Amino acid sequence: MIQRDISVAALAEALTGGDRAALGRAITLVESRKEEDKARASLLVDHILPQTGKSVRIGITGVPGVGKSTFIESFGMYLLSQGKKLAVLAIDPSSSITRGSILGDKTRMEQLSVQSNAFIRPSASGGSLGGVTYKTYESVLLCEAAGFDVVLIETVGVGQSETEVSHLCDFFLLLMLAGAGDELQGIKRGIMELADGIAITKADSGNEVKADMAKMEYKRALHFLPASESGWIPEVKTVSSTERKGITEIWEMITRFERHQQAKGFFAKRRNDQQIFTFHRLLQEELKNRFFREESIRQKMTLMEQSILKGTISPYSALKQMLS
Amino acid sequence: MIQRDISVAALAEALTGGDRAALGRAITLVESRKEEDKARASLLVDHILPQTGKSVRIGITGVPGVGKSTFIESFGMYLLSQGKKLAVLAIDPSSSITRGSILGDKTRMEQLSVQSNAFIRPSASGGSLGGVTYKTYESVLLCEAAGFDVVLIETVGVGQSETEVSHLCDFFLLLMLAGAGDELQGIKRGIMELADGIAITKADSGNEVKADMAKMEYKRALHFLPASESGWIPEVKTVSSTERKGITEIWEMITRFERHQQAKGFFAKRRNDQQIFTFHRLLQEELKNRFFREESIRQKMTLMEQSILKGTISPYSALKQMLS
Repeated sequence: MIQRDISVAALAEALTGGDRAALGRAITLVESRKEEDKARASLLVDHILPQTGKSVRIGITGVPGVGKSTFIESFGMYLLSQGKKLAVLAIDPSSSITRGSILGDKTRMEQLSVQSNAFIRPSASGGSLGGVTYKTYESVLLCEAAGFDVVLIETVGVGQSETEVSHLCDFFLLLMLAGAGDELQGIKRGIMELADGIAITKADSGNEVKADMAKMEYKRALHFLPASESGWIPEVKTVSSTERKGITEIWEMITRFERHQQAKGFFAKRRNDQQIFTFHRLLQEELKNRFFREESIRQKMTLMEQSILKGTISPYSALKQMLS
Repeated sequence: MIQRDISVAALAEALTGGDRAALGRAITLVESRKEEDKARASLLVDHILPQTGKSVRIGITGVPGVGKSTFIESFGMYLLSQGKKLAVLAIDPSSSITRGSILGDKTRMEQLSVQSNAFIRPSASGGSLGGVTYKTYESVLLCEAAGFDVVLIETVGVGQSETEVSHLCDFFLLLMLAGAGDELQGIKRGIMELADGIAITKADSGNEVKADMAKMEYKRALHFLPASESGWIPEVKTVSSTERKGITEIWEMITRFERHQQAKGFFAKRRNDQQIFTFHRLLQEELKNRFFREESIRQKMTLMEQSILKGTISPYSALKQMLS
């Protein structure tokens, strides 16, 4: 899949020169799980690192059906009209059996995807443990090196992935539906604590009252959450993506947040936290790789697995024997 | 939290004798992340292992709002009426900031929770990588040792957790809403591949036509998926939890599946796969624990982290230095 004849330095140069195809290839390279690609990926990231850090990294999440794609389409077109260059990284909870992509089979963000200042990239999470953000941080860095000043990281679903994405972004935006079911109301608390802002979607003509009521409700709910370290109080907005209402206000909220964080020194702090998080992740990955790469260990594992399958040993005893 | 004066053997005995409080304490013990508890937990699991394996392990999932709690309440009451003993392990995507439980603040499964033959346990996932099924397998074993013949593992949300839960159960039931939005239709494919059966919920009076249409649609969709190894074709049922319609049929589907799997040798095969999956998980956990427990490594990590925070080094260079 990856062209081997292109050197890492050439790829880095093409990418920082604004070559979108090169950016695509670079992301494919950092996402690759092949040993030989990993070394090249690491070199590439080293190479472009000085050109990174200059975008606003925005995490976007919400339950299926909340209208994430429509919002990003509308929000993205607005950003482009403001002269921004926008990259969208959509984390795709792909099938773990066929490894197929579920986003790939739908045409999403039709308008945005044809703009020269927009780059949209669905990335499969691959179903592995911790796979949700597997290499997403590196992809953000690549987008920054390619000159994108806003990077949106979109996650699908509710749960685990949000916690991880919140470690990768400067601003975490939660999209919520007005008047959703009871269980939905229940699930949002954990995620609401991570949000720097909430947008009530589908505040379309005729639906404004419902959306405004939801806005009040969420504002009240946010009061019960512990205040953030920086003193920022998450704002709640209503938005109609199809009618393009409330879009400007979302961007204003984000820039206001950025100023607030910069003034208090929390912007840099959060970026530092992202780096520490990344350091820990890299360390764990490398640790695992080294262990399982050893031939003697793999042989012993195979033996243990055979005993487990024969029913002569439990996974717990196998672990003990393995480590003794 | 855990009483230290009770020995592991006494806890195991109380638990296998059907003491529900002991079961609760045992699950708390295996979920504990304290070093001293881990050793005791491992001993406890070793102790009860011969008494395990005799339940039907059912994974249940569906998006928020699909009616999981209501279904489990209704399905659970039916199982009790059939003389079964039921344990419900609800994996709770709890807040990673306050570590608060979001299920704890709602009264769920009111009827079921007061039955002497039912045991309901919400377990926090804790927001950590791979935390979704952290120790869920061990909790299943404990429930089996305590004499429960059906164990339901409920996950909230859409995504990562489903893949993991499918590694823990004999039958994976997917709850779906009739006529949900477009994006929801998009997300289901990856999860549908994991499902052994689908139940269309809220097929209440007046809603039957819509539910039946959804049933036909999902049946058609299942045809496009690769056939399962065992030759089982996932069935699609409609169910009204509040009117208690279709509940018997769900249980009949599961027992039919079990017979099918047993006859083909796939029941044991899947259980074996669960054990291999558990072995790998245990090994990775232990590997990580051992590495980070070493004082010299922790000192070096602290140094690296300080350099990252000062901005003098990137996470990538820190990794290289750490491992050199």
